[in-house]
Amino acid sequence: MAGIVVQNIERADPDVIDGLASCGVATVHEAQGRIGLLASHMRPIYSGARIAGSAVTISAPPGDNWMIHVAIEMIKPGDILVLAPTSPCEDGYFGDLLATSAQARGCRGLIIDAGVRDVRDLKEMNFPVWSKAIYAQGTIKGTLGDVNVPIVCANQSINAGDVIVADDDGVCVVRRADAAEVLKKAKAREANEGDKRARFEAGELGMDIYGFREKLEKLGLKYV
Amino acid sequence: MAGIVVQNIERADPDVIDGLASCGVATVHEAQGRIGLLASHMRPIYSGARIAGSAVTISAPPGDNWMIHVAIEMIKPGDILVLAPTSPCEDGYFGDLLATSAQARGCRGLIIDAGVRDVRDLKEMNFPVWSKAIYAQGTIKGTLGDVNVPIVCANQSINAGDVIVADDDGVCVVRRADAAEVLKKAKAREANEGDKRARFEAGELGMDIYGFREKLEKLGLKYV
Amino acid sequence: MAGIVVQNIERADPDVIDGLASCGVATVHEAQGRIGLLASHMRPIYSGARIAGSAVTISAPPGDNWMIHVAIEMIKPGDILVLAPTSPCEDGYFGDLLATSAQARGCRGLIIDAGVRDVRDLKEMNFPVWSKAIYAQGTIKGTLGDVNVPIVCANQSINAGDVIVADDDGVCVVRRADAAEVLKKAKAREANEGDKRARFEAGELGMDIYGFREKLEKLGLKYV
Amino acid sequence: MAGIVVQNIERADPDVIDGLASCGVATVHEAQGRIGLLASHMRPIYSGARIAGSAVTISAPPGDNWMIHVAIEMIKPGDILVLAPTSPCEDGYFGDLLATSAQARGCRGLIIDAGVRDVRDLKEMNFPVWSKAIYAQGTIKGTLGDVNVPIVCANQSINAGDVIVADDDGVCVVRRADAAEVLKKAKAREANEGDKRARFEAGELGMDIYGFREKLEKLGLKYV
Amino acid sequence: MAGIVVQNIERADPDVIDGLASCGVATVHEAQGRIGLLASHMRPIYSGARIAGSAVTISAPPGDNWMIHVAIEMIKPGDILVLAPTSPCEDGYFGDLLATSAQARGCRGLIIDAGVRDVRDLKEMNFPVWSKAIYAQGTIKGTLGDVNVPIVCANQSINAGDVIVADDDGVCVVRRADAAEVLKKAKAREANEGDKRARFEAGELGMDIYGFREKLEKLGLKYV
Amino acid sequence: MAGIVVQNIERADPDVIDGLASCGVATVHEAQGRIGLLASHMRPIYSGARIAGSAVTISAPPGDNWMIHVAIEMIKPGDILVLAPTSPCEDGYFGDLLATSAQARGCRGLIIDAGVRDVRDLKEMNFPVWSKAIYAQGTIKGTLGDVNVPIVCANQSINAGDVIVADDDGVCVVRRADAAEVLKKAKAREANEGDKRARFEAGELGMDIYGFREKLEKLGLKYV
Repeated sequence: MAGIVVQNIERADPDVIDGLASCGVATVHEAQGRIGLLASHMRPIYSGARIAGSAVTISAPPGDNWMIHVAIEMIKPGDILVLAPTSPCEDGYFGDLLATSAQARGCRGLIIDAGVRDVRDLKEMNFPVWSKAIYAQGTIKGTLGDVNVPIVCANQSINAGDVIVADDDGVCVVRRADAAEVLKKAKAREANEGDKRARFEAGELGMDIYGFREKLEKLGLKYV
Repeated sequence: MAGIVVQNIERADPDVIDGLASCGVATVHEAQGRIGLLASHMRPIYSGARIAGSAVTISAPPGDNWMIHVAIEMIKPGDILVLAPTSPCEDGYFGDLLATSAQARGCRGLIIDAGVRDVRDLKEMNFPVWSKAIYAQGTIKGTLGDVNVPIVCANQSINAGDVIVADDDGVCVVRRADAAEVLKKAKAREANEGDKRARFEAGELGMDIYGFREKLEKLGLKYV
Repeated sequence: MAGIVVQNIERADPDVIDGLASCGVATVHEAQGRIGLLASHMRPIYSGARIAGSAVTISAPPGDNWMIHVAIEMIKPGDILVLAPTSPCEDGYFGDLLATSAQARGCRGLIIDAGVRDVRDLKEMNFPVWSKAIYAQGTIKGTLGDVNVPIVCANQSINAGDVIVADDDGVCVVRRADAAEVLKKAKAREANEGDKRARFEAGELGMDIYGFREKLEKLGLKYV
Repeated sequence: MAGIVVQNIERADPDVIDGLASCGVATVHEAQGRIGLLASHMRPIYSGARIAGSAVTISAPPGDNWMIHVAIEMIKPGDILVLAPTSPCEDGYFGDLLATSAQARGCRGLIIDAGVRDVRDLKEMNFPVWSKAIYAQGTIKGTLGDVNVPIVCANQSINAGDVIVADDDGVCVVRRADAAEVLKKAKAREANEGDKRARFEAGELGMDIYGFREKLEKLGLKYV
Repeated sequence: MAGIVVQNIERADPDVIDGLASCGVATVHEAQGRIGLLASHMRPIYSGARIAGSAVTISAPPGDNWMIHVAIEMIKPGDILVLAPTSPCEDGYFGDLLATSAQARGCRGLIIDAGVRDVRDLKEMNFPVWSKAIYAQGTIKGTLGDVNVPIVCANQSINAGDVIVADDDGVCVVRRADAAEVLKKAKAREANEGDKRARFEAGELGMDIYGFREKLEKLGLKYV
Repeated sequence: MAGIVVQNIERADPDVIDGLASCGVATVHEAQGRIGLLASHMRPIYSGARIAGSAVTISAPPGDNWMIHVAIEMIKPGDILVLAPTSPCEDGYFGDLLATSAQARGCRGLIIDAGVRDVRDLKEMNFPVWSKAIYAQGTIKGTLGDVNVPIVCANQSINAGDVIVADDDGVCVVRRADAAEVLKKAKAREANEGDKRARFEAGELGMDIYGFREKLEKLGLKYV
């Protein structure tokens, strides 16, 4: 079944992608109807990174990072590598040398439902990674996997060319075809939130801003 | 069963609360007889915060953050929100807007046995959170919960008005009625530790300071 | 069975130990044939520390830190404490006072498959710890354990005097007798990596540098 | 703090307790408003047991089972031992000898948020246990705990004399004072379920029995 | 985003489905190239069940089982319900009443990446369930989800009408369009295994049957 | 590092091994000073098996079961296979064909800190396995490992020829050289327990049998 590399994938509009990055994971997730979040065990190796990019997907055997080399050749500037092992694994598939190579090709980061190593170097290189584990365990190069086929990574289905958004809140996937529409909704949401924030800062309550009192009373909320 | 909001709760003396904050979690936990620690999965979203405050408790359905709005109206300056879901959940009940509202009311932070989002904003706002997960998953507003009733949060029983102490070591609860006495013991412990620290720095051994040698020998410790 | 303290242990050459520290966990692990890594749940309490030292091992009952005092007397400058509980435990065996004492004896850090507390102080003291948990739960002094006997810590067998290498990637153990040879291989690996890094930075692909294309084709990799 | 044994506790009516046992965990949990369930990691060591009884609570140090002996003296026929360690622990606090002693006193079973051993013997003895782990690790007798004080076990607050209901679905606690009322509601629920079951068996749909169609349509459910 | 019910789905040939059931999970998984296995946390509530059927998929909010009623109306004899919550949840979405209703419609079982309850009754009814947890926690009926849309369940992508195979080894999904071809390969595999089994029983070694000796020697295996 | 097969290992006396099996895990663990227990995640795939045997150890790469074939050739009647992956893995290394082969050689069972499959067949064959997971995920045959070298399995150090004891309580390892002595102590313990059991059955309390009252009072236990 394994052994396929899809060379040409479609990508979303670069401006849309960058717009999604600046909106951030939580806003994008809400804007597209509360879907697309990868599992909460996917944590950044350092805080502060905020990226979006087109997914170059990798399906790799447990403890075998050969396909990452194959995938790096497929990278276009602005892409993000997304790796799912074919069975649960926390080995360190990726370190500073692969990051150097990926970064030289314009890669913005890595999402990996497995382990990563050389995290000190990766931070210095400003190459962000969201992973399941930090673990130095070495991997081999012996078995084929796939590149740019649909994968399930951290309980989300991801296709090559889908937009990945990642920041300190985690990782979210946006279908390529929906990206522009989701960005529009995300920006609307941001504008709306700005107004709300000002009212909250001024001490107004959500109870009043959102008109919750009557609804809660109807449901039987009792103040004692 | 759900749907109760207790409006008036008693709080500990503000000076006692602030004193407990400066003693910190480990010292307060020891001072009150090694009790009151919330489970170790409760981690701060950023390091360095040290707070104490009166618990405004929230019992909320899984994936439903409506009661947080209700609870925020109950906040008095110096309070800390403490949320336990009614079944295990890691959804992101709380983000920057709710934090803005809570902070405007004088809230010092949030303890939540579930998820939180917008953690970058929360750090910038200096609004600390101790949580089970960082997860952007959105929540709904559909079902009643309770505010200021006794809850079990991260395996500790917490009553409204109990003192919550939280820092990089985790979270500890002190019964409101015991707070002054616990502070006294915590300060005594601190004074005692200062002396010990100086002796340790000078190279003295715990074996000698505490007189362990004889006891260990009696129990059969063998040096080979 | 418990109650043994081995007083004299052999240690590796200090220059070799320091050399291993500067190579780091991932390189050392690879250099010795991809062995020796402690489980990935062993995380540093703060980032940036890079140490190596000789293991002073501690086998301790759950929730009982008495043997740490015994072990500290055995420390020589450059050593690292390594504690394994005799059954799974995340209590806070170690805090700032013990760190002060250990540091005064020249100890470089602690590896503990259990909990630690006072992490803010430990960071300020520059005393690094790799642990399973940060948890303030206090411990007792009631039962004997062992010092400088072989232990299994986080799924790795460790002998007193083995070299421990620890950094942001985790913790690795090197057998004392192998340390010099492993250092040689680690340095060779580093030299080799420097060259590779330059080629990756220049945009060369691993596919070409390592000659993967032919092998992958033979195995049936298909570009579509 | 530890070292208290409360000798006289109030218990619910034996007939009420037995009635709750026959209703089972799921029904009792629903009947009392969906509260009282212990965490899902509390699993029976063998399937098929269905019990209810009055809680004799034990707060015990990690890896120390001394207080179980103290608690057994407090047992009245029909009681259930409920043990919570003071910090997370999976040691085997309880085995066939303690079960023999407890059973001789009329104890109906054990709820323990820690480990248990001799599970083959316990099954043969028909002494059911719900635990966090099956683990033979031995424990000591060195430190005081408490008997019949309020505890938090598997994330639920439990008082001595509360009614414990346990079966293959897990464990539920019912406040002593509420037991009779909860039983009444549970029986009503059972009666109601019998009728529903017959209609479901006959092929009627919940959509029709509960009148869901209109509500779902209003919320926007679309059939495509 | 939620609120879609797809009424007409295509199903695989019933004989193919039954054939896959009799081959079992491990064989089917191997036959289709080692893909399709749901995560190992999906365990049967009782041992011995072996089923296959067409997936009727359910995407449900955490703690809300309303969509199961909607899905049951979509069941055709031979189907299997497959539920994925929209965020991690272990509540007891499903019990004996829903099982009665589903079974009356011809449903063969339930795959749920969440909790289930009334497991004693389900076993008596011979209604098998593979779940993440056994947990009696009650759920509500308040929010829309989807039925028969593509879902990700326990880290596998599943479409309505895909074939689900489940037994004591876990759960495997086979794409509807591939089912006949996979069955052919699975049967071939079984035939081949029968021959191997006989040789193994007779004491022949895999080393000889598969001709491993030379390959292992070439790779450097050393007998000492 | 990998690629070693030790052909000749020493084994304990068969009668001693069988004696240890009949004593069982909990008794043997206690008899040898409360050491040697494998982690509690090692669970039997079916209940009721009680075995002991000499360890034939296997160190295997993640997701690669080639070395099991090598190990089976090393089996002598009465042996037990013990497999530790070189990094965490739950793939199904072992199924009914390998069990058939191992059983034909006289193997009594498998201890594996990873996954197993075909568990229904294994139960029918009466071939017991204690594993970390039941998971059908297939493995490859591509990389060398080692046979009969020292390994760490489920947090215990195990040498080839050590005695493995396994039953419903889990798995315990006894050093080969200590086996006879441990058996003697285990039998003494059993004899002693028989007497205790009779007294407990007669209603005597541990408080009296062991003379705990005075000690507890001295430590400050208060009856209220």
